[in-house]
Amino acid sequence: MKTDDDTSVKPSRRNFLAVAGALAGAAGAGAGMMTAKAQVAPSLPTPAQANEEPFYGAYQGGITTPMQESLYFASFDLAATKRSDVIALLRDWTHAASRLTSGLPAEPGIQDLSAPPLDSGEVAGMDPQRLTLTFGFGPDFFSLNGQDRYGIAGKRPPALVDLPHFNGDELVDGQSGGAICIQGCANDAQVAFHAVRQLARISYGAATLKWVQSGFSPANKIQGTPRNLMGFKDGTMNPNSATVGPVVWAGDEGPAWMVNGSYMVARRIRIALEHWDRMKVTFQEQTFGRSKISGAPLGQAAEFDKPDFGATDADGNSVIPDNAHIRLAAPVNNGGATILRRSYSYNNGANFVAERWPPWRQGIEYDSGLFFQCYQRDPRSGFVKLFDKMSKIDALNQFTTHVSSAIFACPPGIAQGEYIGQQLFET
Amino acid sequence: MKTDDDTSVKPSRRNFLAVAGALAGAAGAGAGMMTAKAQVAPSLPTPAQANEEPFYGAYQGGITTPMQESLYFASFDLAATKRSDVIALLRDWTHAASRLTSGLPAEPGIQDLSAPPLDSGEVAGMDPQRLTLTFGFGPDFFSLNGQDRYGIAGKRPPALVDLPHFNGDELVDGQSGGAICIQGCANDAQVAFHAVRQLARISYGAATLKWVQSGFSPANKIQGTPRNLMGFKDGTMNPNSATVGPVVWAGDEGPAWMVNGSYMVARRIRIALEHWDRMKVTFQEQTFGRSKISGAPLGQAAEFDKPDFGATDADGNSVIPDNAHIRLAAPVNNGGATILRRSYSYNNGANFVAERWPPWRQGIEYDSGLFFQCYQRDPRSGFVKLFDKMSKIDALNQFTTHVSSAIFACPPGIAQGEYIGQQLFET
Repeated sequence: MKTDDDTSVKPSRRNFLAVAGALAGAAGAGAGMMTAKAQVAPSLPTPAQANEEPFYGAYQGGITTPMQESLYFASFDLAATKRSDVIALLRDWTHAASRLTSGLPAEPGIQDLSAPPLDSGEVAGMDPQRLTLTFGFGPDFFSLNGQDRYGIAGKRPPALVDLPHFNGDELVDGQSGGAICIQGCANDAQVAFHAVRQLARISYGAATLKWVQSGFSPANKIQGTPRNLMGFKDGTMNPNSATVGPVVWAGDEGPAWMVNGSYMVARRIRIALEHWDRMKVTFQEQTFGRSKISGAPLGQAAEFDKPDFGATDADGNSVIPDNAHIRLAAPVNNGGATILRRSYSYNNGANFVAERWPPWRQGIEYDSGLFFQCYQRDPRSGFVKLFDKMSKIDALNQFTTHVSSAIFACPPGIAQGEYIGQQLFET
Repeated sequence: MKTDDDTSVKPSRRNFLAVAGALAGAAGAGAGMMTAKAQVAPSLPTPAQANEEPFYGAYQGGITTPMQESLYFASFDLAATKRSDVIALLRDWTHAASRLTSGLPAEPGIQDLSAPPLDSGEVAGMDPQRLTLTFGFGPDFFSLNGQDRYGIAGKRPPALVDLPHFNGDELVDGQSGGAICIQGCANDAQVAFHAVRQLARISYGAATLKWVQSGFSPANKIQGTPRNLMGFKDGTMNPNSATVGPVVWAGDEGPAWMVNGSYMVARRIRIALEHWDRMKVTFQEQTFGRSKISGAPLGQAAEFDKPDFGATDADGNSVIPDNAHIRLAAPVNNGGATILRRSYSYNNGANFVAERWPPWRQGIEYDSGLFFQCYQRDPRSGFVKLFDKMSKIDALNQFTTHVSSAIFACPPGIAQGEYIGQQLFET
C-alpha cells in the first residue's frame, strides 16, 4: 500500500471508532503496550504504483476491463431502513473502493492502535494487482416484499427484470439474488478477498452478506482465449474492444441514471466434470460445436473462422449439431443478440454424492464449474433471450446445473467526489 | 503444453481406453464427425518452457520449493485391495506427475478422438506455472482397520504417529486423514486444480477422493514474508534455505525408505475473521506477540530481530505476553523444536451462523482461514510437541478452530524411471 496522501476525499462518516486513519504502525510502535492508549504511527513507505486499474471514469471498472486472475463476488442484503443510511453506505463504499483499487488501505488517516484496525492488513506491501470493484443493484434494492424502503421503487429500470425460472434450474436456497452485489477482481486471490472483506466490514449495520463466490481464470497468463474446466475455449464469440460498447453500455432507452451503466447476470453453473471427462472427444466437440484444441467451429480450420450453420455431412446431418452450444448461442441465430461473457471457473471443494445413473457410483464429486457472468445493455434481449432457448435444448445441459442466479443493474462510473449510484438518488 | 517428446517413459498401463495418447487435435480435426471413428491428430506446438520446477531429484518438490500462489490439496482413500494395484497406481501417478510438472498432458501419445480425452485440456497452451505435485502416505496407507492390505504395515515409520486429539479440535466429519495425499501447488489456480484432477481421474477404481482444499498465497508477489488473513506476517521464524535441510529431511533415524523424505502435518484452521477484525490493534499485537505492520517481536524494531522473552514492562508484565503466539511457537522455548511452515490461506465461501456471545449476531460468516501445512523430520519433536502446548494456551485459539487434521509420510524424491514410494515396496 502507498503512503496515505488522499486528503481530497472527505473522511468516512463511519470513522467513529478511531482517529480517521489507515492501518499503519511503525516498526515496533505497538511494542510492549499492555494497556490500550492511543498511539499515532507514521505511514507506510510508498511503493511504485504498478498494476492499477482506474476507479473513476465514465464506466465502472470490471466490465470491459480485461479479465484478471481472481474473482471474489459477494451479494448483500440491506439492513438499512432509511434512504439516508443507504446513501451513506454507498458513499463509504465508494470512498473505500477508490482507495483499495489504488492500493491504499480501506480507510484513510492515522491508525489509533487502541481501536480496531481500519484495514485488516493482509495486503500491506502489495500493489493493487489490477483490482476492480464493480457495484450492482438487484431487484431487492428497489423494493423488498412490495415495500419501497428507500423511495426508489419508481426508478427501477424496466431492463432489470426478475429473471424467470429457466428449464433445469436447481437453485440452492439462499444462494441467489440480493440487493447489492460487489464483484471484486484482481490478479491475486488475497487482494480480491481482502477488498470485498473490507467493504463488508464497513457496511456493518447497513448491509449483510447474503452469498459469495470466488473464482479463477488463467486469462492473462495465456495468449488467446482461456479455457473453461471442460477444456474448451470460452469467450470466442465475445465482442472485441471495438464492438463491445453498444453491447454492454446502456443508452437513453432506459432511465437517465443508468446511461453508461450495464446489466449483469450471474449464474453459478455446477459442471459434472467426472462425467464430462469420460465422454469421447468427438462427443465433447459435438456438444460445443467446436474442435477441442483449436477452438475452430466444426467444419472450419481456426478458432475465429465463421461457423457454417447450414453445412451438412454426407448423411444430411448438421455438421454443427442442432443442439450444439455455439449454434444456440451465436448472435446470428438469435436476431443479433450479443452479450459480453466475463466468467470465472470456481472450485468449492468436493461433496459426497450417490448417483443412480451411468456411470453408477457413489463417492466424492467436485463442487466445481463456471461462475458465469455476462454484461449487456438489456438482459431481455441478451441473456434472457439467449438462455431461454439454450436451457431447453443445449447439449451442454447434460453436464451443467444452474445453482445460483442473480441480476444487477450496474450504474455508470463516477467522477471524483461523487458516489456510486448518485444519479439514482439525486436526479 | 509442449510437444509430446516423452518417449523415454513407458506408457501407462491404464491407457486401455485409447491409443496411448495426449490430448491433442489439430485445428478442426474433429470437424463434422458425427460418427465416432478413430482419428489421429498431430501434436500441439512447442512453447518456451518457462516456469518449470524439477520433478526428479533427491527430494520431492513442493516442500522446500519457494511457495507458489495456489494450492489444491487432495486426500484419497484407496479402493485397491492388492499390492500390485497400489504399485501400478503409484507408477501411473508418477508418470503423469512427471509430465504435468513439465507442462505436458497427463498421458502421452496421440489422442484417439473416439475415446475419452487423456487430459481434460483446460491448461493447453500454458506453461507449467511452477507446478509441483507432492505425494504423502497416511496411516491408513499402511493398515486400515487393523488390516495390512498391501504387506507394508511393518514398514510404517514410527515418526508417522496417529495425531492425538488436541485441545479445542473440532474436526469436521470426513475432512481429515486419508491414505494418500497429493499437494498440488502452482502459480495458477487452474493449473493446480487441473493437475490433481488428472491424477484423480487416472486413479479411477484404485483410489477415491476423500477430502480436498484449495488455497492461495501472495508469497511470490511480495518482498519479504507474506501475511495471513489476520493481517500478520506468517513464517518469520521459518528456517531459511541454509538451515532447512536438517529440519525437514529424514535421515537414517527411521526406515531406509524414508531417508530424504519428510513428514507433513496438515490442519485446516478456520478463523473467526469478523471477530478478529473488531479487536484493537494492540490486542491483536499482544495475541501474536508482534507488531502488526513491521512484524517485529514486541519490544524490538524489525521483523527479524530476536524476541526478548524475558523482558518485562514497568508493571512487571511480560512485554511479549505469556500466551502470545510467538512465545509458544519459538524453537528457543521448545527445546529447539523447529518446523517448516508452508501454509496457504483458504476461502470456502460463507455460511449462516447464529452466535450467542459478544458481539451477538446472526448472519453470514466467512468459512475462511489458514490451511496450515508444515514439514519436519519427525512430527513427535515437531508439530505434535509444539502444538500440544499451543492448543492449550495460545491466545490465538480464541479466534481459530481446527476443523481438519492429517499427517503424511512424504517419501524421498526419485530418479527418472523410478516411481514415488518405490523404496517402500522394493527394499
